[in-house]
Amino acid sequence: MSIDALVSKKSEWLKGEGSKANVVMSSRVRLARNIEGQLFYDRASDEQRDGTRRTVSLAVKRLERFSNAFFLDMRDTSDVDRKFLLERHLISKEHMQDVQTKGLVVDENEVVSLMLNEEDHIRLQVLRSGFSVMEAWSLADAIDTELSHHLPFDYSRKFGYLTSCPTNTGTGLRASVMLHLPAMVMASQVESLYEAISKLGLTMRGFYGEGTEALGDFFQISNQVALGSSEMDILDNLERIVQKIIASEESTREEFLKKKKEEFEDRVFRSFGTLKSARIITSGEAIKLLSAVRLGVELGFIKGISTAEVNEVLIFSQSAHLQKLSGQELGRYERDVKRADLIRKKLGGE
Amino acid sequence: MSIDALVSKKSEWLKGEGSKANVVMSSRVRLARNIEGQLFYDRASDEQRDGTRRTVSLAVKRLERFSNAFFLDMRDTSDVDRKFLLERHLISKEHMQDVQTKGLVVDENEVVSLMLNEEDHIRLQVLRSGFSVMEAWSLADAIDTELSHHLPFDYSRKFGYLTSCPTNTGTGLRASVMLHLPAMVMASQVESLYEAISKLGLTMRGFYGEGTEALGDFFQISNQVALGSSEMDILDNLERIVQKIIASEESTREEFLKKKKEEFEDRVFRSFGTLKSARIITSGEAIKLLSAVRLGVELGFIKGISTAEVNEVLIFSQSAHLQKLSGQELGRYERDVKRADLIRKKLGGE
Repeated sequence: MSIDALVSKKSEWLKGEGSKANVVMSSRVRLARNIEGQLFYDRASDEQRDGTRRTVSLAVKRLERFSNAFFLDMRDTSDVDRKFLLERHLISKEHMQDVQTKGLVVDENEVVSLMLNEEDHIRLQVLRSGFSVMEAWSLADAIDTELSHHLPFDYSRKFGYLTSCPTNTGTGLRASVMLHLPAMVMASQVESLYEAISKLGLTMRGFYGEGTEALGDFFQISNQVALGSSEMDILDNLERIVQKIIASEESTREEFLKKKKEEFEDRVFRSFGTLKSARIITSGEAIKLLSAVRLGVELGFIKGISTAEVNEVLIFSQSAHLQKLSGQELGRYERDVKRADLIRKKLGGE
Repeated sequence: MSIDALVSKKSEWLKGEGSKANVVMSSRVRLARNIEGQLFYDRASDEQRDGTRRTVSLAVKRLERFSNAFFLDMRDTSDVDRKFLLERHLISKEHMQDVQTKGLVVDENEVVSLMLNEEDHIRLQVLRSGFSVMEAWSLADAIDTELSHHLPFDYSRKFGYLTSCPTNTGTGLRASVMLHLPAMVMASQVESLYEAISKLGLTMRGFYGEGTEALGDFFQISNQVALGSSEMDILDNLERIVQKIIASEESTREEFLKKKKEEFEDRVFRSFGTLKSARIITSGEAIKLLSAVRLGVELGFIKGISTAEVNEVLIFSQSAHLQKLSGQELGRYERDVKRADLIRKKLGGE
């Protein structure tokens, strides 16, 4: 399976299914692991890094789940390929740099992926549609257990799993939820949400994770620290707080529907109309408008289009996806034109 | 025929027909006349004004063309009625004030109208679709001649027709053309057009004539002075200069089509999409967007909608038209919602 085969696939996490898909786009669980007896990535030589990657790859290949998986040497990727993988939420920004010894494994359904030699030897990720942190955790836990039968993980009785950066030490767990909060943004409630969240041991990030901006009312919320709590405590805390945010977004939507239905509809349908009509559109404007359209679908204003289709357009209209789809590098203007074409086609415009 | 009967009628000048209708919305000829032996409007008492109006009305009624005409006592009109007549280009802003003794006559097809006791005893107007100044003039001239058989006009061998304001003295003629210049606006050529025009004895005004703003790339160009030239010279001068402006707008459009077709299409289709989608829209935004849609129709980008239909929406979506159509006074917000509804319906939106 080549990287091009990934391009036209529809990722499982974009399906718009699962619990509370009206507010939660996706849930993610990530485990950081290192191999006992091997130097941490940042201390190791390229040769040692290569060795680690080979060891891990071989172990992964022994697992039934990865029999049809896609193994990628990051060295073989172009700039556009890496951007594409980031847009697809399969790699981190970190994993785009110094690709010499880095690797990536993606399972058949794009549910499980492993970054090899990111900051740690292994970054195992499970990404699911909707509010499904626990399901994601179960799967990640099972794979982690299986892997541990083939790989000796760096583990200390005192600290737990050892990691390159101390914020991951302990459980090595980061769980996150991608929330769609258009009503709270309209009601200017996000600023105070930021503050409240950080006091509860959580952190709020942008659309592509650490170090990225919030785009189109999408916010990623995750646990801040992996040490000092059990996995279940971390997940429970995240679930509990996210449930409150979901309830808050839902009640704000209801309030708007009662008091300002026309303004709400106006925003939704103008956004939809513009997306179905524009001939040139930037990525930033597209995300903003698609966010409003997603809201329109969730509220039942817009019929005949599913959340999954909006999610898909959201990802496929990103710059690298556009370039992979058209099989060539494109300048900014060409991308803006191609993006408008793709969006019009997908949303049934003229 | 009551004022309400006018509401749903489609004025002849909105038909989008006639020469150069791609750039010229309408042509208008207006003649100012006063009755010999009667004091000018601003000098007369209300009683004298009433007398003049009755005299003129009786004379007008004797003309075949006005056998089915609509005679209106401005005293009987509401604020909304007067706003409606202004939007319909049947009266001036001046004619909305001090309505005590003012009158209005509109012929069956809304081609000819007479304001009685505006600034002068008679303001005869012929309004036609497209670039048809000469046709409008012929008709105005014929009616003027007929009227002069029944009414002794104030005329001096030295000055010509005498009028309340010296700028109208002489021919009493004001001819004007409503131009749609979206490409020249996009190319920032309108500022210099303003200057050039004023040096050529012409003046540029807004969408509702004197003292009104330019809206949505629509500009009214008319002769500045009525004295010292014959009617034919005035009309020739206007025609000649307007022809040049039309040519300039056309060549600017062609240039854009060659060099910036996508930007052009983008603007047109975004405007169309927004109009077909919005749930709340102000009059100012609607005119701006309709201007782009009119351009789209003229360039053949938009199919299935005629210039006449765009013109009609342009006029019928104005505030007073909306209120007359819904049979009640509406607040600003209600108008913005009704306007969006009407536009969506007319343009085949959702």
